[in-house]
Amino acid sequence: MSKIKGSNAERELLNMLWGASWAAMRSAGSGSMHFPSPDLLAGNGIRRLAIEVKATKADKKYFQKDQIKQLSNFSQYFGAEPWIAIKFSRDWVFVNPEDLEDTGQNMVFHKKECENKGLDFDTLVRS
Amino acid sequence: MSKIKGSNAERELLNMLWGASWAAMRSAGSGSMHFPSPDLLAGNGIRRLAIEVKATKADKKYFQKDQIKQLSNFSQYFGAEPWIAIKFSRDWVFVNPEDLEDTGQNMVFHKKECENKGLDFDTLVRS
Repeated sequence: MSKIKGSNAERELLNMLWGASWAAMRSAGSGSMHFPSPDLLAGNGIRRLAIEVKATKADKKYFQKDQIKQLSNFSQYFGAEPWIAIKFSRDWVFVNPEDLEDTGQNMVFHKKECENKGLDFDTLVRS
Repeated sequence: MSKIKGSNAERELLNMLWGASWAAMRSAGSGSMHFPSPDLLAGNGIRRLAIEVKATKADKKYFQKDQIKQLSNFSQYFGAEPWIAIKFSRDWVFVNPEDLEDTGQNMVFHKKECENKGLDFDTLVRS
């Protein structure tokens, strides 16, 4: 995924979160830091979400194991739920790290598993 | 304050927070967003801090009222404590928004008030 496509997806999700009355903030990015950080942090006064954001036109999305581990670690230290947001073409799905499939070398989520394992945006922010 | 000096102060405080076992994240900045956002968000699993970071070599620091209001609003929506971190030359002080003095046009904090009103870093993160 290009950085631009990723940034656009982050901005779109930021808008969706504020539109649903969540406060959300984009990270300055890993380029300037030695520390793990999710792409977005969101809170509604009760829950906090640490979100890694990806966009793809393919029917599956791969993740490096280290990236998922950093998301889980940050979430645990901060006190937030770890979530992976994937935009498949036009459709967003929100996945728990433990719902990714371990291929041995890395982690993957298939678009066809959206209905079984993923949440849509409304369910994520209202659950 | 120059943007560079501000970024350096943000990075220094980010390091201090991780060193004190808090997870912390820098904001992508207001340039790319229409939404309010603090400079840093930090959490330790129990408390969350939304922090506006400033550095100055003067003996007082002025703030725009709108900036302080945005910090308070974000903190309320997110569910975090609002804090203003000021680095006076080498010394950090952490101040509540309500401890700033209202000059009418803007808000100000004087270095001489550090002992009465401000917290030092250790007290902030351990209180």
